[in-house]
Amino acid sequence: MRRTAADRFRHLFNRSFLLHRHRHHHHNHNHPPFPASSSLSSRSPFSPYRFFFSTPFSSMASDSPFPVTAQNINPKVLKCEYAVRGEVVTLAQNLQKDLLANPGSHPFDEILYCNIGNPQSLGQPPITFFREVLALTDHPAILDKSETQGLFSADAIERAWKIVEQIPGRATGAYSHSQGVKGLRDTIAAGIEERDGFPANPDDIFMTDGASPAVHNMMQLLIRSENDAILCPIPQYPLYSASIALHGGFLVPYYLNEASGWGLEIPELKKQLDAAKSKGINVRALVVINPGNPTGQVLSEENQRHIVDFAKQEGLVLLADEVYQENVYVPEKKFHSFKKVARSMGYGEKDITLVSFQSVSKGYHGECGKRGGYMEVTGFSAEVREQIYKVASVNLCSNISGQILASLVMSPPKVGDESYESFMAERGNILASLARRAKTLEDAFNKLEGVTCNKAEGAMYLFPQIRLSQKAIKAAGEAKTAPDNFYCKRLLNATGVVVVPGSGFGQVPGTWHFRCTILPQEEKIPAIVSRLTEFHKKFMDEFRD
Amino acid sequence: MRRTAADRFRHLFNRSFLLHRHRHHHHNHNHPPFPASSSLSSRSPFSPYRFFFSTPFSSMASDSPFPVTAQNINPKVLKCEYAVRGEVVTLAQNLQKDLLANPGSHPFDEILYCNIGNPQSLGQPPITFFREVLALTDHPAILDKSETQGLFSADAIERAWKIVEQIPGRATGAYSHSQGVKGLRDTIAAGIEERDGFPANPDDIFMTDGASPAVHNMMQLLIRSENDAILCPIPQYPLYSASIALHGGFLVPYYLNEASGWGLEIPELKKQLDAAKSKGINVRALVVINPGNPTGQVLSEENQRHIVDFAKQEGLVLLADEVYQENVYVPEKKFHSFKKVARSMGYGEKDITLVSFQSVSKGYHGECGKRGGYMEVTGFSAEVREQIYKVASVNLCSNISGQILASLVMSPPKVGDESYESFMAERGNILASLARRAKTLEDAFNKLEGVTCNKAEGAMYLFPQIRLSQKAIKAAGEAKTAPDNFYCKRLLNATGVVVVPGSGFGQVPGTWHFRCTILPQEEKIPAIVSRLTEFHKKFMDEFRD
Repeated sequence: MRRTAADRFRHLFNRSFLLHRHRHHHHNHNHPPFPASSSLSSRSPFSPYRFFFSTPFSSMASDSPFPVTAQNINPKVLKCEYAVRGEVVTLAQNLQKDLLANPGSHPFDEILYCNIGNPQSLGQPPITFFREVLALTDHPAILDKSETQGLFSADAIERAWKIVEQIPGRATGAYSHSQGVKGLRDTIAAGIEERDGFPANPDDIFMTDGASPAVHNMMQLLIRSENDAILCPIPQYPLYSASIALHGGFLVPYYLNEASGWGLEIPELKKQLDAAKSKGINVRALVVINPGNPTGQVLSEENQRHIVDFAKQEGLVLLADEVYQENVYVPEKKFHSFKKVARSMGYGEKDITLVSFQSVSKGYHGECGKRGGYMEVTGFSAEVREQIYKVASVNLCSNISGQILASLVMSPPKVGDESYESFMAERGNILASLARRAKTLEDAFNKLEGVTCNKAEGAMYLFPQIRLSQKAIKAAGEAKTAPDNFYCKRLLNATGVVVVPGSGFGQVPGTWHFRCTILPQEEKIPAIVSRLTEFHKKFMDEFRD
Repeated sequence: MRRTAADRFRHLFNRSFLLHRHRHHHHNHNHPPFPASSSLSSRSPFSPYRFFFSTPFSSMASDSPFPVTAQNINPKVLKCEYAVRGEVVTLAQNLQKDLLANPGSHPFDEILYCNIGNPQSLGQPPITFFREVLALTDHPAILDKSETQGLFSADAIERAWKIVEQIPGRATGAYSHSQGVKGLRDTIAAGIEERDGFPANPDDIFMTDGASPAVHNMMQLLIRSENDAILCPIPQYPLYSASIALHGGFLVPYYLNEASGWGLEIPELKKQLDAAKSKGINVRALVVINPGNPTGQVLSEENQRHIVDFAKQEGLVLLADEVYQENVYVPEKKFHSFKKVARSMGYGEKDITLVSFQSVSKGYHGECGKRGGYMEVTGFSAEVREQIYKVASVNLCSNISGQILASLVMSPPKVGDESYESFMAERGNILASLARRAKTLEDAFNKLEGVTCNKAEGAMYLFPQIRLSQKAIKAAGEAKTAPDNFYCKRLLNATGVVVVPGSGFGQVPGTWHFRCTILPQEEKIPAIVSRLTEFHKKFMDEFRD
């Protein structure tokens, strides 16, 4: 007789369950803490993952001709999930192939990828100055050719010269220092100082291929066993749950308060931390995403001060995901880096351990494909720093174009530079348009029956809540999927719009959401809104209790 | 009383030793298997690592103000070592700073980095065609400008157009498919087919930021616990020992036979595998580096057939590091990919599980800073493939410039293209010069007292053996370092030449080596040889028994 997927899944983890049986008793509570994204309890914020497992396991053959099987790979890999490119997106890719092969076979003629913060894939043009500098540093041989002056702005040529000179031997094709080219780190540190009004040290900068590897580095450093935990917001960006799962740790969730605009409340942090500690779990770090992903909230400076004090008092590393620092759309809110907040409270290097993640993939530029980013690492002892450096050195260095771009993002054209006006216009247009799109989509969601949607104060997403009928929930159960997954797949099949089910980010058990980016081109938004509205009406009618 | 570094180190691992105490009894043998790079036994090929640990631990304070200390980070991070950017290189960087601050303070005026395969850092120019295409795809806005035709070759413009069209939405700044842009994978698959004469599937290609992340991905997939092991050559490229340590696995070494030109001998493989299996260790994969790093040997096709049969019979994944496939310097040897060899033996997808690693960092182009690479993954079941894809998707994609470059490397200019002649000239000059440099350095090493050096048939390194006197070994012991480390630090301080001690790669216990790249510019080689020769004479005289 075939075992069920859940049985197989349990079987896979028998060994670790046995090894740590005494601890697993503690986890049978209605609410977390729970092992990162591996909980089978229907009360965890990630419950729908159990459904996701039915797909890969259904095709398992016990007489596999292959030495590597799903039964004998690293169970941490099996545990890890990343819904942003998960089941719904795979379905969308198949639909796209189908549309190409059989035009007219679906009630839409294109797939609209609102699942991922990937602005240029939806038509956002790159910032000209950035691309000019990248092209020139990729092929420095043309820097002193006369034709170059006709093709590139004077300040791009000047900047490219400066950067090429900063790279030892002008070798833009060489491995750099493991932390990144020193001159580029100098530029970034200067940019941080200008942003914050407090000093930044280029030796604190570790440049990485986007922010994701930096997050992995920190999880790898901090997580020793599944008894080590990281406090993460719920909902969260699933890189965190995935990385914690891959490193064999434990995710302790704290819930953002949807009713107060996804507020981050210290009593909730304290409650969850204490609950975890009382079970003997070592909570090592606190992740804060500001501006929020998927929630779009921008923290107030006062709130940040309380968070800093909390992390300091509790001896937690503060992991500050600040990749959306340029994406703030409301005049009443402003981005403040946690380092600035901590320093303005008088806390120095020895008072708080703080890591800030930054990326070239977000902001107004959205250069996702360039994989540039860095972490600024403060408040670590010299010997731990040495270990962080050692791990960075195993991977040699991040890509130089990404390093260059990270330096440009932290040091864009200034008043008086030839590109300044056009740069500011490009930047301003993109940010203003993003703000308009966020508002239009937010309004549209709030007009739907049973849907409420907080404002996107920042970042690139809306995370509306959908109140689903019992009938819809039952239908999802029959389709062996989570209700939000059921809704999102229906939406995709009816409209070609790809959004990510809330279960991929975590949500208060019993509530259902989805994440939708604000990135489709502005002229496409009205059509999206009408397709979405029409679908939603039909869905609600079909499943009315 | 202060505890010794080794005591502290042991203390750190008490918990895992206790958990797995029954197994650790098996490891107390004179010869490996041994936990990756963590063995404290002086009979392991990595013995000198115990000395390296004295540095970070000597500065440890028990009353640290920081929540994260060397005592409470992930012990796997502590275990991992990467000598290519290790202690000697850190010393060199300090010397370089000192030279800048105090010119004339040392008996040399520059540091010569022969520690790492980083050709462009030592003056090797990039391949013009590759850089032209990169610049144009970075800034496609200039593709149809008339000035562009004066600056770039016609086939570079044409290729850039083709690539831009292959990228969905022409968005060179967007995240791509998690495995890489489909059109670029098509190009790579076609390049593999042309190289091998056997079909390649673009869906088997996973593009990565250099080859290192691909190696990590495989270790992460295969290693479940420290009872899982990977068969690695000794000497090996330390990425393997580092990655195995980081993933908590076990390195089972097989020794290359220095006397037969670093021969890879099946009986040795079999002996080590059986010894590991008899101890209950699960050996999951076999790493083969061809051309060899640090050894420079190029495997014969017959040898490769035996290796394929061995991996097949033993149910091991064959992890083929083929990043030096373009670097073969002797007419009697030719590179054959393991996939070609396996297919030519009639073995298909279901007969052998094979992963080939390729990188843009090596070859004649040496584009290390671009971080391009891929793995070609064959012989995995659909459900395992799905897991590999999932982990790739967590990191979104590798950098697009690196992806483009990987496609160019696998599809360079062809006869009749405008760039063909100049491309072939650039390529030929570099490869011919590398071959001359390898020979000159090999001859120079072989002229030194007590030194023997095998030929570099391929790759970028020589790995000479130095027979050190008892007096030198005693002096190293007094300096609390390994004898090869002692020699390399002396060499650095006397000449500014940076090489990596053999203990970083592993070596037969009691033998001492160092790795030296063949990459310094040709005109500098005579000076290097004379500095090296002079130093060596003095060293031998000083420590004559």
